[in-house]
Formats: sequence, C-alpha cells, structure tokens
Amino acid sequence: MAEGRATTVTDEPAAAPGAAAGKHPALLVREAEPLNAGPPPELQRAAFVTPTELFFVRNHAPVPRLDPDAFRLAVRGLVERSLELSLAELGERFPRAEVTATLQCAGQRRDELAAVRPVPGELPWGAEPVSNACWAGVRLADVLTAAGPEPGARHAVFRGLDEVEREGRRFGFGGSVPLAKALSPEVLLATEMNGEPLPPVHGGPLRVVVPGYIGARSVKWLAEIELSSRSSDNYFQAKAYRLYPSHVSKETADPAQAFELGELAVTSTITSPRAGEAVGPGPVRVEGIALAGGGRRVERVELSGDGGATWTPAGLGAEGDGWTWRFFAGEVALVPGRDEIAARAWDSAAQTQPESAAAVWNHKGYMNSSWARVRVRPQRPGEREVG
Amino acid sequence: MAEGRATTVTDEPAAAPGAAAGKHPALLVREAEPLNAGPPPELQRAAFVTPTELFFVRNHAPVPRLDPDAFRLAVRGLVERSLELSLAELGERFPRAEVTATLQCAGQRRDELAAVRPVPGELPWGAEPVSNACWAGVRLADVLTAAGPEPGARHAVFRGLDEVEREGRRFGFGGSVPLAKALSPEVLLATEMNGEPLPPVHGGPLRVVVPGYIGARSVKWLAEIELSSRSSDNYFQAKAYRLYPSHVSKETADPAQAFELGELAVTSTITSPRAGEAVGPGPVRVEGIALAGGGRRVERVELSGDGGATWTPAGLGAEGDGWTWRFFAGEVALVPGRDEIAARAWDSAAQTQPESAAAVWNHKGYMNSSWARVRVRPQRPGEREVG
Repeated sequence: MAEGRATTVTDEPAAAPGAAAGKHPALLVREAEPLNAGPPPELQRAAFVTPTELFFVRNHAPVPRLDPDAFRLAVRGLVERSLELSLAELGERFPRAEVTATLQCAGQRRDELAAVRPVPGELPWGAEPVSNACWAGVRLADVLTAAGPEPGARHAVFRGLDEVEREGRRFGFGGSVPLAKALSPEVLLATEMNGEPLPPVHGGPLRVVVPGYIGARSVKWLAEIELSSRSSDNYFQAKAYRLYPSHVSKETADPAQAFELGELAVTSTITSPRAGEAVGPGPVRVEGIALAGGGRRVERVELSGDGGATWTPAGLGAEGDGWTWRFFAGEVALVPGRDEIAARAWDSAAQTQPESAAAVWNHKGYMNSSWARVRVRPQRPGEREVG
Repeated sequence: MAEGRATTVTDEPAAAPGAAAGKHPALLVREAEPLNAGPPPELQRAAFVTPTELFFVRNHAPVPRLDPDAFRLAVRGLVERSLELSLAELGERFPRAEVTATLQCAGQRRDELAAVRPVPGELPWGAEPVSNACWAGVRLADVLTAAGPEPGARHAVFRGLDEVEREGRRFGFGGSVPLAKALSPEVLLATEMNGEPLPPVHGGPLRVVVPGYIGARSVKWLAEIELSSRSSDNYFQAKAYRLYPSHVSKETADPAQAFELGELAVTSTITSPRAGEAVGPGPVRVEGIALAGGGRRVERVELSGDGGATWTPAGLGAEGDGWTWRFFAGEVALVPGRDEIAARAWDSAAQTQPESAAAVWNHKGYMNSSWARVRVRPQRPGEREVG
C-alpha cells in the first residue's frame, strides 16, 4: 500500500485477500470483496494498540478510488454556515487532536447467536472484529462549532463515498449520532491511524471515529456531515444496525419495532484457551479482552469454571481515557465434569453481561454481549496432552 | 410539615413514622428513625412525577435541625477561589435551573438478593426506593465555574450536615462524583422539590441532585463541596456503596476488591400483579417501571410468562429528558404450569438485565438489576378468583 496515496485495493495484485490493502496474512477473512476480516484470537491481544495490519476491516462495498487533492468534506443542513473543506483546510483551520479508541463491530460474536437460531444473510463474525488504535485528526466538535449548529439540530448525519448496493439502489454507507455525542471531545474526523496516514481500507483519507459507539457509526470515506432534526434515513441506520426483538424474523421485521444501535454494551471475549484446546489438570490460565460502551469503565472481569455458580476475579491490564478495551488474565479451576470456561465483565454502571446468547438472539445477529464462553478438553491427572 | 422552615422530624408528635415529615401513611416503613420508607407498589406508579408525600426516603441519621438564614455552603479544595454562599446568594448569583429526575437507592430490590443468601446489617428494601421528582435550584456547574476548578481537580466531594454513626465515629454523610459529571448541566444544587421548598426530610434546605447516579451521591443537607484529585474518603464512598464481588462476605470484605458505585444500571420493577395475586385465565396485564442509568434511554421492556424462553414487548409510557423512569404496561400469557411473570428492560446501549439475582448477589445487597419477577396464582378456566 502506497502511503498517503488514496487508491483502491482492487488496483493491486492480491496474493491473499487483504494483502493488497496491507493487512496481515493471518487475518480470518469472512468476505474477500468487499474485505471483511479480523485477527485470530492468538493475535488479537498482540498489543494494547493493535498494529494497523491486524486491525479488523468491516466494509460494505469496495474501497472507493479517491483523489485526496480533490477531496472535499461538506458540512450542511441545520447550520448557520455551510462549509466545504479540503483536507489541507481541515488541518489548517482546526487544532490537531488524538484519541486512542477501540472500535467494535455490532456483529462481533454473531457466530454464537447463529448457533442458537440461524442469522440469515449476515457475516458469520466470531470474536475478531474488535481492535484498538491511536486515531488523529481534528475534533468533529470544532468543525461543527465553526459551522454553527442551529437550535433544531439534534443529530449529526454522516455519508461516505463508497457505493453500497441494497434493495436495488446504490448509495454511500451512512449513519448518524446524536448531536450531543458529535460535540463530545473524543469524536474525531480522523486522517491518521497509529501515526500513519489513514489507509484507504480503513476509510482514508477521512473518516469519523466515534469512540464508545458501534463501529458502523464511524463512517469511512466521509464526504458529508448534515446536521438534522432527525437521525439518518440511510439504510444502515433506518433498517440495519437496529436491535430487533427476539420474536421478529427477517420476514416479519419492521424497523419500527427495533431501536437504533449507538453505544456499545459491556462485553468480553476469551482469547485463550481456544475452543477445543486441551487444558489442565489444575488451574487453567485464561486470557481475553473486555470492553465497555459510551465511556464507561471496565471495572471487573470474572472467570467461572462451574457454569457461573461461582466466579473468580481476573487481573486487569491498562486502560486508556475511557475509550479503550482492557486486557484480562487469570486462573480458574474447571469443576470435574465441566468443559466450559466463562468470563463476564462489569462496567462502572454496575452492569454485567447477560448469561446466554439465546437470551439476546435477534435476527440481524447484533450485540451479542452474553458471557464469553469457551469449550475446552479437560485433561485428567496423569493424562498426556495431545496437541 | 411547616413549609420553608428547616426543622427535624423528631420535633413533631409522630402519629405514624413519617407523618411528621409530611409523608403518606401508606408508605412501607423499613426503619422509623432515621426514616427509611417508600411507596407500596400500588402507589408507586400513581403519577409520572411522584407526589412528594409518596417519594421514598433514605436517611442514614436523624434529620438535622438547620436554620436556613444561618445556612452556608462552602466550596473549597482545588479551586481558584473558595466560596461561602448563603441560600440567598445562591439564588441571586446563579440562574435558576430545573430537572425532572428519578432517584433510585442502590439497595432497591435488596430483598431478592437476601433471599439468595443473607445480606446482614442492611435495610431489606423491596421495590419501593425509586421515585421521580421535579427538582429546582441552580446548576452545580455554574457554582463550580465561579469557584474555578484547578487543573488537578478530578472529583466533586460532597459532605452533609447530618450526623451518622459508623465504626465508632460521628460524621456527615458524604460521597463524590467525577468532576465531568459534576459539570454536566443536569446536576443541580436543589432548593425545591415539585414546586415547593425542599422538605427537611429530603435534604432541605439544600441538597445535590445527581440524575442517573445511585441516590447516595445526591447528598442531603449539603454543607461542603470540595474539589479533589481523589474520590471521597467518606465511609459511604470508601467502604459502603461499592460493588463487592460475590465471593466476598461481610467478614472478608476489603474495599480494594470493590468498585465505587456511580451510574445506575438498566433495571425494571413489576408493580402489578402483586406477589401471590390470582391472575387469569387468559392474558395477564402487567404494569411496572423501568429505569436506565447515566442518561441512557429505556428503549424496550419485554414480558415473559415462560421463564424467559420467549418475550413479548410491553407498551412504553412517556419519558423525560433522559433522567427519568418510564412506565410500561402489557399483556403476557402464563404458560400452563408456570406461576412466574418476568420483565426485562433494554437501554440505548443495547444492554439488558441479567437473568437471576443469584448471579449478581453481593454481601452489601446493591444493584440488583436482575429480571423483575413476580410469582402469582394462575387461575384455571372456570375457577373463581378468590380475593
């Protein structure tokens, strides 16, 4: 990938899906074009700040071919002054800002929901679409303040330059966040990721980064911000990325029954041991990641080897300024006859994860924040581990 | 109760606990002195804004005898200018502000936790310590801005004028909130409740009201605000009102294992039918209240008559500006052989309530946000309901 040059992944010879976009060859690829991929569990905790080549990719259309010199961001709608800004003007008119923030796809751990009942037509994500990066650019609040929000403005509506096809139409991926969130200092118009120009596959030359919210609201290839009295009418806000009740199927779904997803729920993922791995005898070392939404803290992670009858606290790693994941590690004893290890996180609102994926099933397969569970192969004393 | 006069409930002849303080005679009284009481389920949903006589009371010491003319609020610590303000000066120097906000005690529904394992030495609250009022006064943010927070200030530490006895010491009840919360516009220094002077039993002449947080942070008879680099070292922040892990008992508790409670968790309460009430045959009408913490919205409430295997949406009532409860009502079919109705709420972060009280038990009995459940007496077709 040529740094600083907006291009498209389809320009390059593709040895492996994602290779042309600079992605790590070990990524689990759920879809090759558009690219949807993320790191396997053994690489997910490689570093507190995820190397860019390992950061998950969730795209809804091919990466658009953009000329950064010709690129313009439009700010319009319920504003006192409409703006049209080049990348150079963005950098000159507004102070530089940085945030370290974890993004997580609303479909993370969908595979566990699909194991309960089918989730038709959606990517079968496992634990991989959650990663943490250092983002830099300018504050969205500064740009919106320059435009001057009018009193009726309630939502910041984003539109990207990709070309998604849904329901027989082609349109840019879009979504919105409440204006109060858009004006919060952690929300960036990002042009850099981990100290490098924002790669095209991650939304370069410009994307919005909305920490604490589902990844879908961090719209890539951002061309337009409209302040509006209402949330986005884009397919990905009005129909998808909504939480439907569990009794609703794809056939019977009515968006009015669902609510828009925004802040993430507190959740956790076990990265080690892996499913099917031989463990024990004796205490099992468990590692994973936990994440809270909306700026809440991960206050505690607990492990259970007896189906949740008792819990043991895990140790917690570093945290950022409220917008990042926390790693956890600890030991738990598997009760004889049990083969499942569970983890649950608690956030600073004393909220913890619901027990079962069945209890939170929905036909789009979003927001599976149920206990992290991994089924292992317990070894008895004297039994050899068979790799 | 004489309006506008700061007095103590022990001055008056007490026909029933709370009567002298102007409280409704039907309140469920958990403790007479200090008064701890709240409305029974049939009165809890009496109105969206709870009449003051029905608003729950949670006091840790007798109501202090205060002279409002001599009353002063001190603002000190990490500020550029210490302040000492009379009630008249508060009203003159700062603009009037109002908020409609629900307060909920962290011990709400402790009785269900105590039924799992004993919760020694704590009030056996049921559903009653949650109520909603219109508060008025001035914004805490305006007062803090006048004092000028210094760069190292991270917490607003509150101290009241009551005299609590704990661990052989007498001290004013206290607690703290992060400075960012203290500077949020919904946080008030309140001198009025439901259009009347704040009654002494509710903290008059002055209390802080921290919407979205556990009630304990809304310190009554507020005498002092200290900006500090650390949260309060008061017993009620440093030892109580913390969430201890479930494996910790009163004897083994170490505050370092626990985290400070702050924002409320999403929760719900069934107010009708009552426990043991005869219902059916046919669909059962269910009514209740739901509450989300930290400004999150109650987006959905669901009912189950089959132990959570399936859920039916309830209808939702009005909501305020993010700081109030929502009423719900709906119908649910009790599956033959079942005698329990359950409810669960979802907030705007797609978080829902954990399934069982056993899963969230802690020895202080805080934050039981598990599914609301009520055990009823199902009537078979042809069976007469016996009052």
